[in-house]
Amino acid sequence: MSSRVYNFSAGPATLPLPVLEQAREEFLAYPGAGASIMEISHRSKVFTAVIEEAQSNIKTLLGISDDYVVLFTPGGATMQFTMLAMNFLNGGTADYLHVGSWASKAVKDGARFGTTRIAWDGKPDGFKRMPADNELDLDSNAAYVHFTSNETIQGIQFQKEPDASGKPLFCDASSDFLCRPIDIDKYGLLYAGAQKNVGPSGTAVVILRKDMLDRIPENLPPLLDYKVMADNNSLYNTPSTFTIYIIALVTRWVLQEIGGLEKMEGINREKARMLYDVIDSSDGFYRGHAQPQSRSIMNVTFRVGTEEQEKMFIEQATAAGLDGLKGHRSVGGCRASIYNAMPAAGVEALRDFMLAFQRANG
Amino acid sequence: MSSRVYNFSAGPATLPLPVLEQAREEFLAYPGAGASIMEISHRSKVFTAVIEEAQSNIKTLLGISDDYVVLFTPGGATMQFTMLAMNFLNGGTADYLHVGSWASKAVKDGARFGTTRIAWDGKPDGFKRMPADNELDLDSNAAYVHFTSNETIQGIQFQKEPDASGKPLFCDASSDFLCRPIDIDKYGLLYAGAQKNVGPSGTAVVILRKDMLDRIPENLPPLLDYKVMADNNSLYNTPSTFTIYIIALVTRWVLQEIGGLEKMEGINREKARMLYDVIDSSDGFYRGHAQPQSRSIMNVTFRVGTEEQEKMFIEQATAAGLDGLKGHRSVGGCRASIYNAMPAAGVEALRDFMLAFQRANG
Repeated sequence: MSSRVYNFSAGPATLPLPVLEQAREEFLAYPGAGASIMEISHRSKVFTAVIEEAQSNIKTLLGISDDYVVLFTPGGATMQFTMLAMNFLNGGTADYLHVGSWASKAVKDGARFGTTRIAWDGKPDGFKRMPADNELDLDSNAAYVHFTSNETIQGIQFQKEPDASGKPLFCDASSDFLCRPIDIDKYGLLYAGAQKNVGPSGTAVVILRKDMLDRIPENLPPLLDYKVMADNNSLYNTPSTFTIYIIALVTRWVLQEIGGLEKMEGINREKARMLYDVIDSSDGFYRGHAQPQSRSIMNVTFRVGTEEQEKMFIEQATAAGLDGLKGHRSVGGCRASIYNAMPAAGVEALRDFMLAFQRANG
Repeated sequence: MSSRVYNFSAGPATLPLPVLEQAREEFLAYPGAGASIMEISHRSKVFTAVIEEAQSNIKTLLGISDDYVVLFTPGGATMQFTMLAMNFLNGGTADYLHVGSWASKAVKDGARFGTTRIAWDGKPDGFKRMPADNELDLDSNAAYVHFTSNETIQGIQFQKEPDASGKPLFCDASSDFLCRPIDIDKYGLLYAGAQKNVGPSGTAVVILRKDMLDRIPENLPPLLDYKVMADNNSLYNTPSTFTIYIIALVTRWVLQEIGGLEKMEGINREKARMLYDVIDSSDGFYRGHAQPQSRSIMNVTFRVGTEEQEKMFIEQATAAGLDGLKGHRSVGGCRASIYNAMPAAGVEALRDFMLAFQRANG
């Protein structure tokens, strides 16, 4: 595989190589279909088995009961910012934990449909950590409490779910979906853009507690109405069938090759530890953005030496086959996205590169 | 390619084999990316070239001037039913030509945002033909005139654009996009779900005249606001990058391999003629749904002999490698979808099968 680099892009992101190889193998003729999976009806028996496997794998991995539905919705997490507020805010008020760039967008887009109240604000301190439960200023009238479990751009992550004081907990889990076990029963709604941890871009995975369906107002646009999506098992119209197929393969890989989310978390923690260790033992040559107690195991954000050295770092890393390390245009610096599909060997290569770069330039 | 059948599915539909072969070839490592096209940033140089090629190919094929933008939007044509009304109806009234099943959905979904007035109704006669211009009852207050250029389910197609009497003409071209040249300057908005003639499902291609952007109200949800989509060149959030990549390849195939839309139309007309000739010379054994002057060159809809024979027809055709011929569940019968990517050899095989089936059973 000399033609593939180690791809640290934040999303669209690297996918498991065995998944890509299988998809390539059956790209022209999916078994039993005589056509590419892209070319067949979303209502065919063959595709029905695919979407059911994707749902079943997600349910098994997260231990999801029949109290929940698993949906595939168009437009990624950004469309969910609108859709969840259209369905559940509906002129009322809801609490949002303002923990980073993606939380900001959820607050702003939700505000078209009611009051998106900031129950904790990490912005004054530069979005360097997640809040503790006793810092939250929750409103007893909130329709839900929304949080971003992992902020891709800042590289900070909740270590456990915030306490929503009995309100439905809503979560944007785009950049840490399936990276570790979670207690799904705490959630009213969990959604994730597919393009970081489970598939190609353009679709979100949505996990919704069924009792929430009763709160949805009448007559929403069909593709923006969770009830329509649930009643039609995400097939009200033609969904992104190829994306759902890749999600089925990726979740099968986590389940069968990795062995489930506890093992996945162990691998992810070890990968993250390798990079944070380099940062912590660099005497300030590498400077992590996140405060240690909120460090993400998915996105490692850091600055390098001087501005000049940081530019060189990214250039030389790219030349060495370590790609996508430039931080988000809104914050600068470096970012190593080490999602589920990034192999330990890729992180080891980056660690070795960081150590060598400091020796040469520090 | 013995493992591939001839796939007459209405959508998701067959794609050009050379496109699938190229996509398979570069599936693990797109040239210059060191990663699958699915795995790289939508803001990377590599992907920028891909989306620009897709737009440029579409502009070249249809002769689109700089007065228009070409967008890629989430959710297929069904999302457009909502989005176009949210942007341009906005409490007012618009005229809709009610020509078939998809027009019905556009009328219904648009009605959440104003009055979707029926300017011609084909339902009383069973959606068997498109209207003539002098049959249209247009409203001088209409914000736009909406039509469905080809009704996939009924198999009827406009032979030329209806006369909108100076109002902006809006068109759902999902099932005949790029099947023939059109006079794009007649259109205010033209949209097409990708999964019939240009790519995988989940995305729509939207062609919008720029002066329409001034009519859009403030503060719409960003992914449902054509102005936001245009200002960000469809990259406000992460679009379905893989779909846009396949669209680039398919449009390149139409441009370079076929030689443009006049040649594409010639091929399509000849394919359609083969099947309609069988129907017309079958002495009523095959009965076409569409009236001859409105016959679609994309979807050929017909009934076969008795109910029993029709069932046998579909079973035996499937066994012979002619797949996807069952009509839409809402109308029954048979339907052969013969989009751009269906080779003439596939239509010849179906024609020969139809002739042989009639000889054996007629």
